[in-house]
Amino acid sequence: MSASPSPILIRDVTAIPMAPSGQILDHVDILIHPPRITALAPTGTLTIAEDTYILDGRDKLALPGLVNAHSHAGITLLKTGSEALPLEPWLAWLIPKQLEMEPDDCYWGAMLACLEQTRAGITTFADMIALQEPCAPAIEQAGLRAVISMSVMERDPWDGDPAEGQARLERSIEFAQRWQGRGGGRITTRLAAHAVYTVRPGLLRAYAEAAARLQMGVQIHCSETRVEVDGCLARHGRTPPALLGDCGLLELPILLHHAVHLTDDDITLLDRPNVGLSHNPGSNLKLQSGRARLPELVGRQLAVGLGTDSAVSNDTLDLLKELYLAAVLHDWPPGSGPSWRVLEMATIGGARALGLADRIGSLEAGKRADLILVELSEPRHLPGSDPVRQLAYTARSSDVATTIVDGEILMEDRVIRRLDAVEIARECRVRARRLLGG
Amino acid sequence: MSASPSPILIRDVTAIPMAPSGQILDHVDILIHPPRITALAPTGTLTIAEDTYILDGRDKLALPGLVNAHSHAGITLLKTGSEALPLEPWLAWLIPKQLEMEPDDCYWGAMLACLEQTRAGITTFADMIALQEPCAPAIEQAGLRAVISMSVMERDPWDGDPAEGQARLERSIEFAQRWQGRGGGRITTRLAAHAVYTVRPGLLRAYAEAAARLQMGVQIHCSETRVEVDGCLARHGRTPPALLGDCGLLELPILLHHAVHLTDDDITLLDRPNVGLSHNPGSNLKLQSGRARLPELVGRQLAVGLGTDSAVSNDTLDLLKELYLAAVLHDWPPGSGPSWRVLEMATIGGARALGLADRIGSLEAGKRADLILVELSEPRHLPGSDPVRQLAYTARSSDVATTIVDGEILMEDRVIRRLDAVEIARECRVRARRLLGG
Repeated sequence: MSASPSPILIRDVTAIPMAPSGQILDHVDILIHPPRITALAPTGTLTIAEDTYILDGRDKLALPGLVNAHSHAGITLLKTGSEALPLEPWLAWLIPKQLEMEPDDCYWGAMLACLEQTRAGITTFADMIALQEPCAPAIEQAGLRAVISMSVMERDPWDGDPAEGQARLERSIEFAQRWQGRGGGRITTRLAAHAVYTVRPGLLRAYAEAAARLQMGVQIHCSETRVEVDGCLARHGRTPPALLGDCGLLELPILLHHAVHLTDDDITLLDRPNVGLSHNPGSNLKLQSGRARLPELVGRQLAVGLGTDSAVSNDTLDLLKELYLAAVLHDWPPGSGPSWRVLEMATIGGARALGLADRIGSLEAGKRADLILVELSEPRHLPGSDPVRQLAYTARSSDVATTIVDGEILMEDRVIRRLDAVEIARECRVRARRLLGG
Repeated sequence: MSASPSPILIRDVTAIPMAPSGQILDHVDILIHPPRITALAPTGTLTIAEDTYILDGRDKLALPGLVNAHSHAGITLLKTGSEALPLEPWLAWLIPKQLEMEPDDCYWGAMLACLEQTRAGITTFADMIALQEPCAPAIEQAGLRAVISMSVMERDPWDGDPAEGQARLERSIEFAQRWQGRGGGRITTRLAAHAVYTVRPGLLRAYAEAAARLQMGVQIHCSETRVEVDGCLARHGRTPPALLGDCGLLELPILLHHAVHLTDDDITLLDRPNVGLSHNPGSNLKLQSGRARLPELVGRQLAVGLGTDSAVSNDTLDLLKELYLAAVLHDWPPGSGPSWRVLEMATIGGARALGLADRIGSLEAGKRADLILVELSEPRHLPGSDPVRQLAYTARSSDVATTIVDGEILMEDRVIRRLDAVEIARECRVRARRLLGG
């Protein structure tokens, strides 16, 4: 079953719309005329067409679909391939492994990432990888919403041939133009450079100019580790955010990934409406990257989303786990309500960070029908006094029952509809064995 | 169904026995004559009696039952009642809440803790709480193995009446003697004092003497926060472990909870075979307690178990989540294999820490039949190259299919057998609403 033209009614659900009012609504019906939400109203008060497909919302929570603000779907097959490696030795392990990957390995890895994200209630993800060409068709077929980029990394940014980077930039521009708006508008593209330690400033400037010319956003890793920041200070005499500012990138819609090691001046510099950040606590932990200044960033109302980063550095694409980590990893001040803050990050905050808040991130009439139903039925959720705290502290991807994107039901009561989970498992197991052994 | 005398055969399973060899065994059968494991052998090679109950082990992992080295089951109903509070203000919130609890609230909280732990594959837990009297019957009825204590805390250890503490010590001794060996030997008791900041040294000495006389072990919180250590240094001129040593407690089988802020001298002092430690990463995160020196403790081969602490400071009793946290929260050196280390902590390490390694903690003929079957069937486990890393990085309590204690099947293919999950849910919801609102 692919896109269905029939309306959908979610009947008698507790909705956490993440709308500006901040209200939680008990006993509401949500009406969907794909691809949009057309109404939220008290149960039984909406007039519905005869062919309306009914989803029982009782004992479930309806939430905006989760937004994964940072991923690299194409390398998913390398999941659990490493442990106990900080970012720099981890990259030294990862990069040769990536070179062993065939395009079909990336395709099936992206399929698996989409399957896992569908299961986890992630309806939108921001993805960047050099190997994006074979992944994009998988992402399109999976029916998820995505912001995708073919990321550029120079082989030798300091002594190598600048023409190589320039050629990669051109390929990534061509890719971004070709894929913009595909999948019925679910796919949007951005330009992406990997990081200030793998791309020279001249190429970053060329990026900024191309993005401005094409009216595209950009995304880049930024200040992920102490080593990165110290290297940038030594080579360029400024922090990574300051360098990005010098290159013109902070004038564009920009999504900065990680932003772990920020100075006070960096935070001031990044506090502008066109800048989004992704916070990736699971990846930052596994790669021993350090702890972001999250409560300050959120307190200043920067557009901060939550990300899983790749499955290779995480090892799950479980955004509810990232909610939990973001709530407990930081010394949130008493009364700051981290459970609500992290839920915002995973929904409307991520939508803002990705520049999509006009379309997704909350359950409101007129927005795209990207939403999920969560069922808190396991003993770990009992006694269940507070649904927002349950989502932050006791929920996991396995609690997501139903995932809807653009009004298409991609998973219903834990049954995956559009994707062929059996085929994906079979393909991925064989390919991972070739890549990782075991 | 309660204890069954029929033998059980787990057929054709992949076993991770956590035995000294460290081997993983594919395609084995595990034979159980309750309450013991009687054989592990290649599939199809064992002769079995006609009334043997067969469990299909295909596509499952068999592991020793998980050991939760630290909990406070009686306050489970206060789960998700607080957030963003460090230990000291959290205790100021918790203690008056505890005073509102009726004995039946503790009983049903303990029931819920047992239900959640059965679901999570926890077969043994070490529990201490002042309100243990109403909890013990729940723990006995649930069929889990437990080391339990009625914990003593003085109302005013520095200026109050010492007779009050002495009377509490006597009640706790009477409790420990009365409950020792109950539940067909599944329940063992220890004496417990809360911590060096709530019990004066004279009473700690009286504890040590009583435990030595009765040949009992002890358990106590130790060096959980910086505040605790600094207070102990200021009042007593020594660290909490050194003070416990002065009071004679380190000569006994002792289980120290948290051990977050240890000096080099503390670690040397605690490096002796009668000392066990519980590491509680989820609780240490939520209460902003700091980060234990775990890789060093494990590297020196101290008996370190993993604990959830109470559901109030966690908020789940999901030991597989604690495995994950312990694997990613610490800067494990490259090559140190944190996934194996944390799996050891959750099984044989916890058994050592609780003084039960002769009976449980590994799958070996002659040991008690405390074991679990785990099913890694969710997309998040794919592609599944390494079962030990999957257990550490991608598994959660919801992946546990079957839980067996003393050869009794407490959960089979996710169906809870002994406990009445519906009744527990109903009782706990009503009582939590009274205690927490909502």
